[in-house]
Amino acid sequence: MIKGAVIGATGYAGQQLVWFLHNHEYVKIEFVVSHSYADEAFSKIYNNYTGFIQNKCINIQQAEYKLEEIDVLFIALPHGKSFDIVKKALAKGVKVIDLGADFRLNEAACYEKWYGVEHKFPELLNDAVYGLVEIYRDEIKKTRLIANPGCYTTASILALYPLLNKGLIEMDSIIIDAKSGVSGAGRGLKVTSLYGECNESIKAYGIAGHRHTPEIEQELSKAAGEKILLNFTPHLVPMNRGILATCYGKLKNNISQEEIYKIYKEFYKEDYFIRIVETLPETRNVRGSNLCDIGIRVDERTKRVIVISAIDNLIKGAAGQAVQNMNLMFGLEESEGINVLSMAI
Amino acid sequence: MIKGAVIGATGYAGQQLVWFLHNHEYVKIEFVVSHSYADEAFSKIYNNYTGFIQNKCINIQQAEYKLEEIDVLFIALPHGKSFDIVKKALAKGVKVIDLGADFRLNEAACYEKWYGVEHKFPELLNDAVYGLVEIYRDEIKKTRLIANPGCYTTASILALYPLLNKGLIEMDSIIIDAKSGVSGAGRGLKVTSLYGECNESIKAYGIAGHRHTPEIEQELSKAAGEKILLNFTPHLVPMNRGILATCYGKLKNNISQEEIYKIYKEFYKEDYFIRIVETLPETRNVRGSNLCDIGIRVDERTKRVIVISAIDNLIKGAAGQAVQNMNLMFGLEESEGINVLSMAI
Amino acid sequence: MIKGAVIGATGYAGQQLVWFLHNHEYVKIEFVVSHSYADEAFSKIYNNYTGFIQNKCINIQQAEYKLEEIDVLFIALPHGKSFDIVKKALAKGVKVIDLGADFRLNEAACYEKWYGVEHKFPELLNDAVYGLVEIYRDEIKKTRLIANPGCYTTASILALYPLLNKGLIEMDSIIIDAKSGVSGAGRGLKVTSLYGECNESIKAYGIAGHRHTPEIEQELSKAAGEKILLNFTPHLVPMNRGILATCYGKLKNNISQEEIYKIYKEFYKEDYFIRIVETLPETRNVRGSNLCDIGIRVDERTKRVIVISAIDNLIKGAAGQAVQNMNLMFGLEESEGINVLSMAI
Amino acid sequence: MIKGAVIGATGYAGQQLVWFLHNHEYVKIEFVVSHSYADEAFSKIYNNYTGFIQNKCINIQQAEYKLEEIDVLFIALPHGKSFDIVKKALAKGVKVIDLGADFRLNEAACYEKWYGVEHKFPELLNDAVYGLVEIYRDEIKKTRLIANPGCYTTASILALYPLLNKGLIEMDSIIIDAKSGVSGAGRGLKVTSLYGECNESIKAYGIAGHRHTPEIEQELSKAAGEKILLNFTPHLVPMNRGILATCYGKLKNNISQEEIYKIYKEFYKEDYFIRIVETLPETRNVRGSNLCDIGIRVDERTKRVIVISAIDNLIKGAAGQAVQNMNLMFGLEESEGINVLSMAI
Repeated sequence: MIKGAVIGATGYAGQQLVWFLHNHEYVKIEFVVSHSYADEAFSKIYNNYTGFIQNKCINIQQAEYKLEEIDVLFIALPHGKSFDIVKKALAKGVKVIDLGADFRLNEAACYEKWYGVEHKFPELLNDAVYGLVEIYRDEIKKTRLIANPGCYTTASILALYPLLNKGLIEMDSIIIDAKSGVSGAGRGLKVTSLYGECNESIKAYGIAGHRHTPEIEQELSKAAGEKILLNFTPHLVPMNRGILATCYGKLKNNISQEEIYKIYKEFYKEDYFIRIVETLPETRNVRGSNLCDIGIRVDERTKRVIVISAIDNLIKGAAGQAVQNMNLMFGLEESEGINVLSMAI
Repeated sequence: MIKGAVIGATGYAGQQLVWFLHNHEYVKIEFVVSHSYADEAFSKIYNNYTGFIQNKCINIQQAEYKLEEIDVLFIALPHGKSFDIVKKALAKGVKVIDLGADFRLNEAACYEKWYGVEHKFPELLNDAVYGLVEIYRDEIKKTRLIANPGCYTTASILALYPLLNKGLIEMDSIIIDAKSGVSGAGRGLKVTSLYGECNESIKAYGIAGHRHTPEIEQELSKAAGEKILLNFTPHLVPMNRGILATCYGKLKNNISQEEIYKIYKEFYKEDYFIRIVETLPETRNVRGSNLCDIGIRVDERTKRVIVISAIDNLIKGAAGQAVQNMNLMFGLEESEGINVLSMAI
Repeated sequence: MIKGAVIGATGYAGQQLVWFLHNHEYVKIEFVVSHSYADEAFSKIYNNYTGFIQNKCINIQQAEYKLEEIDVLFIALPHGKSFDIVKKALAKGVKVIDLGADFRLNEAACYEKWYGVEHKFPELLNDAVYGLVEIYRDEIKKTRLIANPGCYTTASILALYPLLNKGLIEMDSIIIDAKSGVSGAGRGLKVTSLYGECNESIKAYGIAGHRHTPEIEQELSKAAGEKILLNFTPHLVPMNRGILATCYGKLKNNISQEEIYKIYKEFYKEDYFIRIVETLPETRNVRGSNLCDIGIRVDERTKRVIVISAIDNLIKGAAGQAVQNMNLMFGLEESEGINVLSMAI
Repeated sequence: MIKGAVIGATGYAGQQLVWFLHNHEYVKIEFVVSHSYADEAFSKIYNNYTGFIQNKCINIQQAEYKLEEIDVLFIALPHGKSFDIVKKALAKGVKVIDLGADFRLNEAACYEKWYGVEHKFPELLNDAVYGLVEIYRDEIKKTRLIANPGCYTTASILALYPLLNKGLIEMDSIIIDAKSGVSGAGRGLKVTSLYGECNESIKAYGIAGHRHTPEIEQELSKAAGEKILLNFTPHLVPMNRGILATCYGKLKNNISQEEIYKIYKEFYKEDYFIRIVETLPETRNVRGSNLCDIGIRVDERTKRVIVISAIDNLIKGAAGQAVQNMNLMFGLEESEGINVLSMAI
């Protein structure tokens, strides 16, 4: 039995992680940590767990004393908040999966520029593996520190990686127009997250400045073997869950839609959670699951390829991917405990 | 391995059944039947199943030739459509779980009055067990024909049964004000089911004439030991899933909220899927699960008790309950394959 | 030109009032008051008004110095917050329309019991007229202080008044099961008002203790000529706007649905904003308008009458009704400036 | 008084037109035509109009006999259906505003290629004026036949026109990623328009083949003075109304965001319904109105400009624009009868 714990368990991603760990045959949740709800029963915060999850939330100071009791620590905190606990957990030999942003960017300087926060332990960046299983499976199996990818980034990178890896599109032609459900904004109290302010409306936000941009660029640059800059535009959509990334690139050469489909199917042929689909992806087809659906269209008039990916932002974009990483780190079947299909409606 | 089949597999309840049977460790889906989509791949109708469910839909004539291959047949057809296939399946020794209305009412005359259709095999009504597990567990284990309860009726009966069984309320004081998500209207093409007609609005419908009324009355009359008439008012709510039943009754005697809670907890103490909750039920806490949450309030000013129940209409109100019945019929753990918690958002 | 001002202008009801006053041919908005957004442009808080409304929000202290500049003051504050400003405005000869609860209950003791706040000026209760135009039209024309009714109360009273006034139902048989859109919870920052917590779910709240209960009882008791206690159960529905009140009463005598329809049509025959409809009301048919739709059904099996009313909670339940009151107080056509039809979708 | 009529009055755009014409001070609706609901009261189809609009729907044959009674005919039919009635109406001296696609493309061949239908009266294409007021105001005043623009096209052209007119971006760099509410799909019975299939999901559709593409290209080519091909990708968003168009172009030269804002403000300075906004547009800010909000961002890293526009698809994208055209054709104030602000929630 793997002994696990979750810090930031009452946020939307954190509680989704608890959902999966609770169901996981080989995991026991030792403790859950919540700053806002310390000492309260977890199921009082999330009534869906009533009668099934007995844990009481503890605070992070209490958690530090319990690090020795666990094998793996999941952290779902805002950026800048996980440095110390990661350090301490690693020192105790605990494997760490950080769902936040603090270890995703390889360069501390880049982190500091985009997040406006000093990186406390840049030396740990060498140890951290970017937890996108489909790209870094082997490294993940061996590491003790996972930087779990962001939600937008997961959808964007999975959609574009093969195109760049195979050198099919112009490097300066990439536009990612992404759409997310409201849970992506978290459970914090903001006017913009109120029902009345989100419902029956769509808007873009964070244009040209969203913090997932450098993360996408970092990974796609590696895929391409050269430095890439791209446009990433997130939008807020009136639905609870889901990300749809509509990705555009200019084709370098004549290549048919069919051929690109073949390349994608080959590229992802070992990946249980990637579905290369003929129809256009809809977020509802992956909602509640760890799947990523990818569909491809070529516009012959404009010589552009449009690749569309759909994920559940809280699962493949956060908690599900975290468990997928854990499974690999502990030698389990990759899909263990996260092999759930979407419900159609 | 239990060999099962689903007729009406492309309706909303039918496809939810496929979801559960696909996940069920001890079931193999032998075939799925769809009138509208015969010969099409099931996963082409419901893209969420792409890559996971390979079945092609067959038509009912083809299904009749395959009855010998199966142990259990689930039927999710509109009322009046299941008579023949039920008869034939039983004759072949196949156990039948009918999610439709044709075998729910004990009296053929009552069925004919409310549904306006002649009952073709009234003699089978004696064999049929009303598949509300929490009330008829023992009978279900022994039967070969289950009349799976309606969605509104499940929520209503579970909410009110103990009150009536213990004789706590005036028999003529019962009002059930129920609210359902839109999936309850099915996948048929009706203007009233279009997004633009349902979204951002709530309405009542079928007042004083909804067909779940006699079904609720039948079962609650049995609970009370006398004939009950009641008011049942369904409403359509802009959400995909969920039923909330707000049930009112006039208390015969002074009895505290606490005492009623005690009675409910005792009554349902063996029932895995019933949660007697202190807070007021919300449909999201049971969405995606086979649970029924029940909360109780006493208004001392008016001497009324208000019992509120919440279920997922497609699961505890249809497909989940059907699997729960199947589990009992085949000697399995009651929660096998349906032990899924709701996701919080 | 009537010179008006709004206190609490950046709440949901307040901004809706600004919408109507801005459109009103005979009103000029002199100032708008917001505690949270003093000194900010109103259209920066609500971008829909960009380019059309130039007012900057002021604070309440500044407002007090400007009372002499206005003819009418609208107040949309939480209960307990309007006492002083009402007093001061009246002293300056300003007519006051209070959208809050402080002057709705005739008895200070009743107010203090349900709201837990001392009533600072009980003597003003004699001056206050309950601003339900359809019932108190003549008194409204003559008063200087309007207690604008609550949203649930407006829907409930309009639905039940004729039944009680004509003595058609048992006094102790009344149940009001009401459903409201999320804007009814206001713009305050609460976890329960977040998109992810409201969307795709329905729940009841405040059972047996909601503060609109005594207000409904007060007015229906007057209609009946005797003291009435009733059950009022509010529910939260995932939509922005709208209230549907499903009201139940036990008929004293045999009376047909048709006859009750006749009574309602007669009772409301002079009322522009009341529609007695044959179909069952849907909130979308009144959304964006000041209308109240009322539909009636008799269940002959149980001898109950079910009356359903639908309003827009922010309009007929708040801002629209406030303008309707103002129109009467200033001798204008009752529908002036609020004669807007709902958009169908 | 202008005597008007609407063909296709029970579709979503048609009924919105009835809403505006009913409110219009200078218009009288002589008749409304509906193929599906001939002989039924219009307010029975759309209950929001109960008591306010008395018209009974007639069929198109009856309408032909009444052409002499009207001054203006609005047609809201699917493509390929308006040829004959347009011809007949013009012959009777009736001004025609066609909300469908049949007269929008200048070249019959282009129409036939994209719509797969023969154009019956190509000679009329010379008379037709493309009814985008902000671009063709003078021509509109003089014409007798308006081709009212499509919803996506209105949002897209208004967003990009100044950029192309001033030659600021590379001609082959344009990508329009557009998002629409579900009412854009109309009221026809399709599984994909059912509540359960649209709610809680987003998808792209019609990639590289949507029929609004040539319409956008035609008008932007005129703006640029050269032939443009571009990518247009529509998406379906779970909300009733609204279009958000996120438009990307590669800047030819260094030009600041501020300068581009200046160019847009100058370009649209006479246009009542265009708001150049500093914040990013949200569809809710224009919902229910004839406004188009436009916001601009420059990404200096990638040298791209992102222009975002928001409209109400049924109003500025259909019915409101049609009335705006009518106002000009009849010498009225452009905003007459359509000067309605959005409600914030």
